[in-house]
Amino acid sequence: MAIPKGNLVVGQSGGPTAVINQSLVGVVQEALRHEAITGIFGARNGVEGILREDFVDLRAEAPENLETVAATPGAALGSCRFKPKEEDCKKIFQILEKYGVRYYFYIGGNDSALSAGIVNKIARESGYDLCVFHVPKTIDNDLLVTDHCPGFGSAAKYVVSCFMGNDADNRALPGIKIDICMGRNAGWLTAASALARVHPGDGPHLIYLPERSYTLKGMLDDIDAAYQKHKRVLVAASEGVADKDGNLFLQSDLVRAELRELGMDKVIDMFDATGSVEDLSGGAKKDSFGHTQLSGSGALADFLSSVVKIHMFRKYDKKFRVRADTLGYAQRSMAGVTSEVDALEAREAGVVAVRSAMAGETSGSICFRRLPNPWGKYLCEPFRAALEDVSGVNFPKGMKQYRPMDDAFITASGTDVTPEFVEWARPLLGALPAKGELRGVRVPKP
Amino acid sequence: MAIPKGNLVVGQSGGPTAVINQSLVGVVQEALRHEAITGIFGARNGVEGILREDFVDLRAEAPENLETVAATPGAALGSCRFKPKEEDCKKIFQILEKYGVRYYFYIGGNDSALSAGIVNKIARESGYDLCVFHVPKTIDNDLLVTDHCPGFGSAAKYVVSCFMGNDADNRALPGIKIDICMGRNAGWLTAASALARVHPGDGPHLIYLPERSYTLKGMLDDIDAAYQKHKRVLVAASEGVADKDGNLFLQSDLVRAELRELGMDKVIDMFDATGSVEDLSGGAKKDSFGHTQLSGSGALADFLSSVVKIHMFRKYDKKFRVRADTLGYAQRSMAGVTSEVDALEAREAGVVAVRSAMAGETSGSICFRRLPNPWGKYLCEPFRAALEDVSGVNFPKGMKQYRPMDDAFITASGTDVTPEFVEWARPLLGALPAKGELRGVRVPKP
Repeated sequence: MAIPKGNLVVGQSGGPTAVINQSLVGVVQEALRHEAITGIFGARNGVEGILREDFVDLRAEAPENLETVAATPGAALGSCRFKPKEEDCKKIFQILEKYGVRYYFYIGGNDSALSAGIVNKIARESGYDLCVFHVPKTIDNDLLVTDHCPGFGSAAKYVVSCFMGNDADNRALPGIKIDICMGRNAGWLTAASALARVHPGDGPHLIYLPERSYTLKGMLDDIDAAYQKHKRVLVAASEGVADKDGNLFLQSDLVRAELRELGMDKVIDMFDATGSVEDLSGGAKKDSFGHTQLSGSGALADFLSSVVKIHMFRKYDKKFRVRADTLGYAQRSMAGVTSEVDALEAREAGVVAVRSAMAGETSGSICFRRLPNPWGKYLCEPFRAALEDVSGVNFPKGMKQYRPMDDAFITASGTDVTPEFVEWARPLLGALPAKGELRGVRVPKP
Repeated sequence: MAIPKGNLVVGQSGGPTAVINQSLVGVVQEALRHEAITGIFGARNGVEGILREDFVDLRAEAPENLETVAATPGAALGSCRFKPKEEDCKKIFQILEKYGVRYYFYIGGNDSALSAGIVNKIARESGYDLCVFHVPKTIDNDLLVTDHCPGFGSAAKYVVSCFMGNDADNRALPGIKIDICMGRNAGWLTAASALARVHPGDGPHLIYLPERSYTLKGMLDDIDAAYQKHKRVLVAASEGVADKDGNLFLQSDLVRAELRELGMDKVIDMFDATGSVEDLSGGAKKDSFGHTQLSGSGALADFLSSVVKIHMFRKYDKKFRVRADTLGYAQRSMAGVTSEVDALEAREAGVVAVRSAMAGETSGSICFRRLPNPWGKYLCEPFRAALEDVSGVNFPKGMKQYRPMDDAFITASGTDVTPEFVEWARPLLGALPAKGELRGVRVPKP
C-alpha cells in the first residue's frame, strides 16, 4: 500500500521495564518528523485504553519532558495485562478506524506481539490501510528472532550489581545466600548473574535455570559441595526452576516426594498452609494471561532457604547462616540503574519502527542482529522482522512462542553458564560497577 | 598521654554497607601520613580476626587498588557478628599488646561501639597506651549523638530509587504493592522512601515505622482508604513494625487475636507452620547478637500481602493485584548505587578518627553535626564524641543504646513523615534519579 496519511496510536503493555519509555519517546520523536503522521496519540493502559477510547495527545508534550520520561522506569502511558480475544481485537480495530488511525505501534513482549498480530490480521482482512508494528520490550529476553530484547540489558545490569554487592556481603559475613531472579520460563536474567564474577572464587557459585530440570536433593548436594569448597555459597536461582516434568518446584509432586524422603514433612505443611491461604483471596495465583504468578512473593526463596538450612543443620550439627532474597520488582523498574546500550537500543527500536512504516512497510516487529566486527567490538543493527515470525500468530498449535537460552550458553552440569554466554551478554549491560578486593598480604606473627 | 609510636589495627564489624570500605580507606590514607604509626594492619573479620591473630598488611596495598576497594560494597576486611564478652576483650587487648598495637580503629554500628568501649576500658585500667576509636557505619542510622551515620545515605538512595521505580510500575499496572525496608528498631530507612515522591499522588502512600505501633485492622483500613483515593496503593513498611506491646507483627499475640477476629485462622496456620519449620534448623531465628533475625526472609511481606489480598477480596468481591517485595540485602550492598555525600563522609569519618588520635585524643567515636548556613545549603562537620556517649558502655541498665526517629519527623497519623524529615534527609542522599511523567492532555472523542 502507499503510505497512508492519518493518526498514530502508540501503547505499552505487560510488565514495565527501565527503558520501555525510551521506546515510547523513540516512536514520538520519529513520528514528529513525518507529514504523513497527523495526530500522535498515546493509548492509556495499552489495549484497555483503546477499548475505552482513552488517548492522550503526545504532540502536546514538551521535548524536555519527554526526555525525562524516557529516562524514567515504568510505562508512562500505563500498561495492562489484558490479552484481547479475537472479538476485542475487532473492537480495537473499529476504534482505530473511528479515530482515523493509520499507524499502530504496540510496545511489549510476547503477548503484545500476539495481540498486535491479531489486529494486523483483521486490518488485512478488512482491507483498511493500517500499519501495525510491534516494538519489543521484555526483561525476560525471550522474544523470538531477535538477538536480544530492549529491557534485558538494564535488568541484567541491576541483577549483576545486586550479585556483586551480595557476593561482597557474603564474603564479609560468610553463609549461604540464595537470590531468586525473574525471567519466567527463560533463564537469561538469572544467567546474567554470572557477570558479577570478577575475582577468583566470586559468586554466584551455582546458577539454576528454567531451561534445565533439577531435583531438590541434587540442589542440596550442589550447595553442600560449593560450601565445602568456598566456605560460603552464593546461589542464583530462576523463579522458574522446575522438576523433570516441567513443574515449578512449589507445585511439584516430585519435590513433595523428595521432602517426604528427606523427612521434611513440616516444610510440606508450611506450603500447603500457604496454598490454602491463597484460596481465600480469589484462588490460585495466576496472572490474567493465565500464567502462574511467579513474582511478587518470597515463597520460593523462603522455601529453598528453609530446606537448605534444615539440611545443613542436620549434616553439620550446627546452625547455618542461610538467607534468601527475591530480587523483586526492582529488576524491571529500578530508577537510575540502566544500561546505556540498552537505553539507546530501546530508543532506536521505537524510531526504527516508525521509519519502517514510513518506508512503506505495513507491519513488523523490530529485532536486533549483531554485525560481524573484526576488532570484536559490539555492534548491533535493528531490522524489521515479519510480525508473524515474532508474534506466533500463525504458529502451529504447541509451538513455543518464546525463546529459551541457547544450549551452548549452559554448562553440561546445568548449574552454570559458559564463557560464550558471558561474551554474548557482556556488551548489553553497558558500564558495570567496579569490584575491588584487598591484596591481603598476611602480617607474620611477632 | 603523649602520642605513642606503634602499630595500627583497623577492623570492620556488623552488616556491611555500600561505603564501609570508604571509612577503611580513610583510616589507611590518613595513617600513611603519620610517623607515629608504624604498621597498618587490617583485622580479618573484625574482632574474630584479632582473636585468631589474622591480620593483613595494609601498607602493601596499592593506592589505586584501595580506591577501587573504597567504591566497592561489603566489608573488604571481612566482618563478624561476634559480640565479645569482657574476657574476649581482655584477650583482644593482650593480642593488641603482643603486636605492639597502639591504635585501634573499629568500624561498625552500635555493637562495634560497645565492644570498642570495653577494649578501651581495659586499656585504661591496665595503663597501656592504646588509642581506641569507633568509626561509625550503619544503614539503620540509629547511632547516638551523631546527626546521621555513614552508610545511611547510600542505603536511603537505594530505597528511594526502588520506590521511584516501584511507584512508576504501580501506576502503570495499578494494584497494591507493599515494600518491606530494613532498619531494625529504627524507621529512618523506611521513612526515606518518602523522598521518592515527585509528582502529586506519588507513593509511598503509607509508611509504617517501628517508632509507632499498629493494629492489623488499622493497617487494612488505611490501605483501603488509600486505595479508594488513588485506585492503587504503594506501602512502605519497616521490618520492625510492631504492636502496642512492642512485639513484631509475626510474633504478636495481638495480631494473632486480630486474625482470629477477622476469620483469617488459615493465615495463623501458615505462620505456625513456618515457625515449626524454623525449629528444624536450629531453633528460632536470632542473630548471634541475640537480635531476632528480621532480614533475609520474605515472611513479613508475604504475611501482609496475604492478609491484604484476603481482606480486599472479601470487601470488593474481586481478586486484587497485591504484591510484596522485601527490599533485601541490596539495601546495604548494592554495587554502583551510592550517595556521593555519604561516600565522602564515610571517608572523612576514617580520616578524622586517625587525625583525632594524632591530635592526642585517646579514644572517641566520630560523629557529624550540621553547620548553620544562611543560604540553606547542607554543610556538615565531623567531630570526635566521647566513646562512652555513643557506645553506651557506662549507660545505666535499660537505657536505649540506639536512636529512634525524632517525634517531629513523624506525622500525627503515624503513617507518614513530616516535611521536616524530608528536609533533613534530602542532602544525605546526593543526586537522585529523575522521575518524569507525561503531561497527558486528553484527546477529545471524534
